[in-house]
Amino acid sequence: MITLEQCQAWDQADELAGLRQQFDLPEGTIYLDGNSLGALPRNALVRAQDVISREWGVDLINSWNKAGWWDLPTRLGDQLAPLVGAGEGEVVVTDTTSLNLFKVVANAVRIQQRRHPEKKIILAERDSFPTDLYMIQGFSEFLDQGYVLQLIDQPEDLEKAVTGDTAAVVLSHVNYRSGYLYDMQSVNELVHAQDALIIWDLCHSIGAVPMSLKESGADFAIGCTYKYLNGGPGSPAMLWAHPRHRADFWQPLSGWWGHARPFDMSTEYTADAGIRSFLCGTQPILSMSLVACGVDIFLQTDMQKIRRKSLALTDLFIQLVEQECSGQDLELVTPRDHKYRGSHVSFRHPQGYAAIQALIARGVIGDYREPEVMRFGVTPLYLGYRDIWHAVQHLKAVLHGREWDQEKFRVRGQVT
Amino acid sequence: MITLEQCQAWDQADELAGLRQQFDLPEGTIYLDGNSLGALPRNALVRAQDVISREWGVDLINSWNKAGWWDLPTRLGDQLAPLVGAGEGEVVVTDTTSLNLFKVVANAVRIQQRRHPEKKIILAERDSFPTDLYMIQGFSEFLDQGYVLQLIDQPEDLEKAVTGDTAAVVLSHVNYRSGYLYDMQSVNELVHAQDALIIWDLCHSIGAVPMSLKESGADFAIGCTYKYLNGGPGSPAMLWAHPRHRADFWQPLSGWWGHARPFDMSTEYTADAGIRSFLCGTQPILSMSLVACGVDIFLQTDMQKIRRKSLALTDLFIQLVEQECSGQDLELVTPRDHKYRGSHVSFRHPQGYAAIQALIARGVIGDYREPEVMRFGVTPLYLGYRDIWHAVQHLKAVLHGREWDQEKFRVRGQVT
Repeated sequence: MITLEQCQAWDQADELAGLRQQFDLPEGTIYLDGNSLGALPRNALVRAQDVISREWGVDLINSWNKAGWWDLPTRLGDQLAPLVGAGEGEVVVTDTTSLNLFKVVANAVRIQQRRHPEKKIILAERDSFPTDLYMIQGFSEFLDQGYVLQLIDQPEDLEKAVTGDTAAVVLSHVNYRSGYLYDMQSVNELVHAQDALIIWDLCHSIGAVPMSLKESGADFAIGCTYKYLNGGPGSPAMLWAHPRHRADFWQPLSGWWGHARPFDMSTEYTADAGIRSFLCGTQPILSMSLVACGVDIFLQTDMQKIRRKSLALTDLFIQLVEQECSGQDLELVTPRDHKYRGSHVSFRHPQGYAAIQALIARGVIGDYREPEVMRFGVTPLYLGYRDIWHAVQHLKAVLHGREWDQEKFRVRGQVT
Repeated sequence: MITLEQCQAWDQADELAGLRQQFDLPEGTIYLDGNSLGALPRNALVRAQDVISREWGVDLINSWNKAGWWDLPTRLGDQLAPLVGAGEGEVVVTDTTSLNLFKVVANAVRIQQRRHPEKKIILAERDSFPTDLYMIQGFSEFLDQGYVLQLIDQPEDLEKAVTGDTAAVVLSHVNYRSGYLYDMQSVNELVHAQDALIIWDLCHSIGAVPMSLKESGADFAIGCTYKYLNGGPGSPAMLWAHPRHRADFWQPLSGWWGHARPFDMSTEYTADAGIRSFLCGTQPILSMSLVACGVDIFLQTDMQKIRRKSLALTDLFIQLVEQECSGQDLELVTPRDHKYRGSHVSFRHPQGYAAIQALIARGVIGDYREPEVMRFGVTPLYLGYRDIWHAVQHLKAVLHGREWDQEKFRVRGQVT
């Protein structure tokens, strides 16, 4: 039996516990949705005030050089590169995950058009975050050269699905709903064995699990900065491309920020020779500037320590649910095996939607994903063992008290 | 002879003079670059603090509904619609000007593929802001269906250049360098007479000159919110599409925010039936939220009053330069005719680059555009007649004193 006292002891021994002080979290809330929108780093407000009052208000256009707005996409990219196992000059922060996926799919297909024009399949998962599928659909329809999106139903189907016809594979490193974590290295090898290219969507893994994009031999990666990285609502996304593709870098959203010499004001587009070629238009400087505040906190520790605590917390969550909520029709969706688990835990429950609303009313913020999935994000930077204890106690109360029966919790609204 | 006293009298009679109090401008600066980056509205800092501390920090993911993040692109679009002569539900604020141009070019070409598949020319100006040309080049290369970008050298060439082969015409409503203003209505008619579609880039006209996008019969428009609209550095761009094209709305950057029912988490993309179909990925909420602060100030007056003052100030600038700086090798690039003048004034000078640096050192912030063009943006919301007087006195001193000869002003850096 795990007890509250035991959780308290773990908190006291937790070397990451002090990092919580660097976040502003509302009183009385246990925030288990950092995998949807990360919490507010305390230094974000000060940083925003400086960007607004000084960089914008006083220095005005001079800030393009003086405050380094011009280099912000690569500076932030270099700052977060260690979190994903990328090298310097290999990452940009820009635009949105959806747009960045469009760019790297276009690049991958362009490479394959030259190397293996007969390959026409873009492979992804039915259970991808839908926008990934939508962007591939938009891409294929627009290109109109017979590229077909093929979907697999579960990770186990991947091996058979990648064939000589596969041009590119787009996978979520961690599944947004189940929390399933792919073994990046072995997938890269599997995909490359068929001369296909692999694109990783890191939205639910960046800042949550360690990874070695470059060393593992991945081709492209995109991901968002506002979930585990705590960059702020809708903060610009990241994009990584393996430097071995450098000579083949290409993407069709060729705006001025990706130009080799943008201030020549030439009428001809000449792409930057490096990762900047994935930039397009002028970026939202204020939202982008705050990305640094979240990443700064990560750089005070390392991804291995974060991973250890993440696994300890998700293990604890699963064990406590099984200990406290047995017989409650909960089905664990997330893999038990550490090798295949990201940093959130999902349970299916027939009344999952209403149960999550009841939990939120109690100050435990999880979220809901169709169908019937209650999702609990575990962010080691600002969550402790007692938080997990109390969250499960609330879940127990909701389920035992059938709080999901209350009408007010059953009304469907927008979820994100 | 125009005197400082005369300028003072005009300031006293200026009904818009009070609006300057709603901006934070650095002391001792005359800011003539609001057409590159608009000044800071005083309420932006308070708004940012609220978005960060309350919407993000306290309400967290609940803000998607509670703070209306989800509807922000259309709410801001509706708010600025009156400034461009658009109706409710016709404008979104999202992404960047470059990306929005890609979307509307794709939509225009798609329409023409059905109506007039033989039309293969996209017409633009050699003197477009380069990113417009780059995006069209990227589009055409990617689509690979024989669409060709054809460039005209001057507005007078437009009439002959639009032919039965023209699919779409992309024009800057106000030229970023010369300040030339197209007569939107007559261009729309000229373009439509050849069954072509017209796309307006409003970057240098939105918030500067009145326009009637819908009534004049334009097809599409895109533009930025960080110049005359004062939305903040890199704040998201706007996009308008005439509702007569509604049944044909289409664009390939089909991310989840453009989906008809995004929370169904369907694997199939189904575009929203309206202007939201031009949305793509998750937007930078903080940068986007501040767009309202700039637009709020416009809504306290109207575009006709702003236009009258703008013309009075640009007239004054031209007259004072001719009165104070005669014989100084300055060539007016901007049209004298009000009908063809935007809200900035440009002069060519052989030492234009260094002269602008010398002016900036004196606290007069203009900017430089290749080749040899000194550009002075006139923003009626926060500039007065005395500002123009003093700016020209500084210009006179720079030119008479040959300050552009100083080495420190001749070093080329990045300009934006």
